[in-house]
Amino acid sequence: MEQPVDFARRERPRFYRELDGFLRIPSVSANSKHDGDTRRAAEWVRDQLQRAGLVVEIFPTPGHPVVVGEWRGAGPKAPTVLVYGHYDVQPPEPLELWETPPFEPSLRDGRIYARGAADDKGQLFLHLKALEAHLAIRGRLPVNVVVLAEGEEEVGSPNLVPFVKEHRDRLAAETVVISDSSMFAPGLPSLLFSLRGLAYFEIHATGPSTDLHSGAYGGAVPNPANALVRLVASLHDEGGRIAVNGFYDDVAVPPEETLAGIRALPFDAEEYAEEVGTTASGGEDGYTPLERLWTRPSCDVNGILSGYTGEGAKTVLPASAMAKVSMRLVPDQSPDRVAALLREHIDANGHDGVDFELVELHGGRPWLAPVDGPHFEAAASALERSFGVAPVLTGEGGSIPIVMEFEEILGANPLLIGFALPGANMHAPNEWFATECFEKGIETLIHLYDELASGQ
Amino acid sequence: MEQPVDFARRERPRFYRELDGFLRIPSVSANSKHDGDTRRAAEWVRDQLQRAGLVVEIFPTPGHPVVVGEWRGAGPKAPTVLVYGHYDVQPPEPLELWETPPFEPSLRDGRIYARGAADDKGQLFLHLKALEAHLAIRGRLPVNVVVLAEGEEEVGSPNLVPFVKEHRDRLAAETVVISDSSMFAPGLPSLLFSLRGLAYFEIHATGPSTDLHSGAYGGAVPNPANALVRLVASLHDEGGRIAVNGFYDDVAVPPEETLAGIRALPFDAEEYAEEVGTTASGGEDGYTPLERLWTRPSCDVNGILSGYTGEGAKTVLPASAMAKVSMRLVPDQSPDRVAALLREHIDANGHDGVDFELVELHGGRPWLAPVDGPHFEAAASALERSFGVAPVLTGEGGSIPIVMEFEEILGANPLLIGFALPGANMHAPNEWFATECFEKGIETLIHLYDELASGQ
Repeated sequence: MEQPVDFARRERPRFYRELDGFLRIPSVSANSKHDGDTRRAAEWVRDQLQRAGLVVEIFPTPGHPVVVGEWRGAGPKAPTVLVYGHYDVQPPEPLELWETPPFEPSLRDGRIYARGAADDKGQLFLHLKALEAHLAIRGRLPVNVVVLAEGEEEVGSPNLVPFVKEHRDRLAAETVVISDSSMFAPGLPSLLFSLRGLAYFEIHATGPSTDLHSGAYGGAVPNPANALVRLVASLHDEGGRIAVNGFYDDVAVPPEETLAGIRALPFDAEEYAEEVGTTASGGEDGYTPLERLWTRPSCDVNGILSGYTGEGAKTVLPASAMAKVSMRLVPDQSPDRVAALLREHIDANGHDGVDFELVELHGGRPWLAPVDGPHFEAAASALERSFGVAPVLTGEGGSIPIVMEFEEILGANPLLIGFALPGANMHAPNEWFATECFEKGIETLIHLYDELASGQ
Repeated sequence: MEQPVDFARRERPRFYRELDGFLRIPSVSANSKHDGDTRRAAEWVRDQLQRAGLVVEIFPTPGHPVVVGEWRGAGPKAPTVLVYGHYDVQPPEPLELWETPPFEPSLRDGRIYARGAADDKGQLFLHLKALEAHLAIRGRLPVNVVVLAEGEEEVGSPNLVPFVKEHRDRLAAETVVISDSSMFAPGLPSLLFSLRGLAYFEIHATGPSTDLHSGAYGGAVPNPANALVRLVASLHDEGGRIAVNGFYDDVAVPPEETLAGIRALPFDAEEYAEEVGTTASGGEDGYTPLERLWTRPSCDVNGILSGYTGEGAKTVLPASAMAKVSMRLVPDQSPDRVAALLREHIDANGHDGVDFELVELHGGRPWLAPVDGPHFEAAASALERSFGVAPVLTGEGGSIPIVMEFEEILGANPLLIGFALPGANMHAPNEWFATECFEKGIETLIHLYDELASGQ
C-alpha cells in the first residue's frame, strides 16, 4: 500500500516546480513597494493549502496578511498541531553580489539558490507538502492541524501577537512546529533547545540644520557622524563585552550539562573560518564561538549611513547620521529592559551640539526549550527515520520572536526543527537550501505526524 | 568718458543671464556620468574669454580639461596677473533638500541659488566680466593677464600641478588672483591670510566574505562595521583633540598678532548657531571657534556606509564597511606625513578578523600668506573702493590646494579675494551667491587691475 512518503517521492518533480513558483514572488515585507508581491505570496500559500484539503482563510492585518489553514478531521478529542511559518523574505540587497537573481531560483550543486529558499519559504513549503502527502494518500491526518503563515516575520512580526491573542481559540494547540532554523551540520539533524532574543534599534544623530563644507566649518561645528561613531563604539569595551551599564544583570548562566553538550559538538574553527571568510574571533573574550552564539548576548551594527558615500572626495560635514544597531539577547534578558538601558547609555554619553534619537524597531524575547516530553521525542524519532541518525540538541543565535508567545498565549509546546544548513546565507546574497534537506525535510515532517499520534 | 565700471553696470542684466546659463551646466567633476557636462562648462568659459578678447586654448588632461586664456597686450615688460578659478562643482546630492533644483538657478531674496553659484562658477564669472569690461571700454588692460580655469578642483585637482609645471613659462605671473572663498560677514570685505590643508581618506573594513545573518553569526564573527566605528572613534580623544600619535608635532602656533587679530573680529556665537543650526562647540577644548577653524587642524567623518540602511530592520552582519574621513591641516603639517601617521594609527588599532585598508583620496598643503607688499595693498584698495570699507584679514578653514603650488612653481604671490558670504552652502544643498557681492565683486576686480598697475 502506498505511503505518504512514497507519494512525496513520486511527486517530487512537481514539488520542485511549485517551490520555484513560490520563490519567484518577491515578498519583501520590509519594503512597501513589494506589498502586492507579499499579498500574492499569501494567496499562493492559501491556494496550496486549499488544494491539499484544508479550509483556509486570509486575515488582513494593519500590515501584511495572515494565512490560516485548518484540518479538523481528527475530531475534537484528538490533539492539535499548529504549524507556523512565514512567507515573507529579507530584502535581497546588495543585488550585485548574487550569482543568479534572488527571485529567479537556480538549481545547482545540489542547492536551490533564491531569496527565501531557506528562510522561510522553502521550509514552510516542506510542511505544505507533508500535509498534502498525508491527505492525498490517507484522506486524513492522525491529529488536527492548523497552519499559520505570516508575512511580517522579517520585520519583527508586529501584528502577529495581537492576531494570535484574538484567535487564541482557533489556534489552540498542544504542539507548535516551526521550521525556520538550521541543522548543526550536513547529515546531522538537530532540534533546537534555545533561541536568542532581539532588540533592534535605529540611532539618529542630528547636528547642523544642513550639510556643511567640512573645511569652512570643520572643527567649529559638531559633526553628528563623528558623534554617532563615538556613541556606537562606546557600546563595547576592549574585551568585546557590551559596555552598557546593567546589560549583563539579567544574563543567566546555562546549566553545566547544557554547556557540556555544547562543548561535545564538533566545531571546526578552520571550516567555520572558511565558511564565513574570516575568523571566529568575534564577541566576548573567554567564551568559545558556540557559547557566544547560543548562550551570550551580542551587539552588532547592522547598518550605518551618513554624509557622502559615492565616488570621490566630497568634503561635507553631514547634517545627520544614522545607525541600525541590534542586540541578541539570552535568558533572562528582555528587549524592553535592554531598550531602557540603552536609552540611559545614550543619555549618559551625550555630545554637545548633537541630538540623539533612539528608535526601537523591534524586539523579541529569548527562549529556552523544555527538552523532554513526548512531542520532543516524536520529533527526534521522525528526524532519525529520515536522516538515519539521531538529532543533536543545538542552540540558535537568531531569533524567532513568536516562539515564546506561542508558549504563553496558546500553551503550545514549541518544536523547532530546522532543515537549513550552516552557511545558507539566510539574510545575505546567494541564499540557498540543500535539495537533500528539502527532500528529507518533507519526509521528516510526514513521519512527524505519525510519531506524534503514536506518542499520545 | 565711460569707465569699465560703467560698462559693467550697464551690462548687468546680460551678465545675470549669462551666469544663469553657466550655472545650468551640471559640471560635477566627481561623477563620470557628467563628463560631457564638465566639457561643456570648459567650452563655455573658452567662448566667454574669446568674446572678451583673449586668446584661448582648451588643454586635455587625463581628467577634465584646463582652459587657458591669455591677453599679452601690456607687453613683455609689464607684469602679469594669473587668474585661477574652477568651472567644476560639488555633487548636488541630497537632491531632495534643495528648495529649487541645483541646476536651475533661482533668483530670490537677493540671492542666486544654484550649485556652483558661489563655489566657484559665480566667482570665476566675476573675473571674466572684469576683463571683458576693461577690454570693451579701453581695448586694453594695464597688465598682462592669463586666465587658468580647471575642472577638477572639487576632486582635488589631480592633474593641475603637472599641468602648471609643464606650462610654467606660459603661466608665469607676479600675482595669482583667486576668488574661491568667503567674506567674513556681509558688507565686510576680506582678504585671506591662511588656508587649511587637507588630507582626505577612505577607510575600508572587510570581515566575512559575504553579509551574514546577525542572529546566526552575531557574537562569533567579527563585524567590520563595529570595528570601523571603533577605529574612527579612536581618532579623537575626550577633549576633541585628534588622538593620532604625532599628529600635533608639526602644528605651528600662529604669532600673537595673528591671534589678536582673530580675537578682534566680531564673532557672534548666537548668530553662528542660527546659521549652522547647532552650536559652535565642535573641535578642541580650549580654543575659540575662529581659532579652531583657522589655526587648528580638524578631523571629520565626511561619509560612512555599511550594511542595510533602507526602511525596516534587516538583521545583517555586514561583510564590509567604509568611512570617508578627512583632516584639515594647518602650517606646518603635510598631507603625506598625516597619511603616514594615520596608517600607523590604524596598524596599532587593528581588529582581529577585520582587515583595514587606507585609501588616500587627496591631500593639499596648508598655506600662510605674506600679508604685506604692493599686490596685497592693491587688493585692499580695490575692495575698499567698491565696498566702501577696508577689508579685514581672515583665515579660511577650507583648502585651495593649488595656492602653495602657484607660489612654488610660478613664484606668484597668491591673492585670495573671496566674495561668497558665510552660510552660502558651498558644499551643501541650496548653495547661493548674494547679488550684492556679485555686483560689487565685478567692480572690485575691475578696480584691482588699475590698482595693480598704479602700484608698480
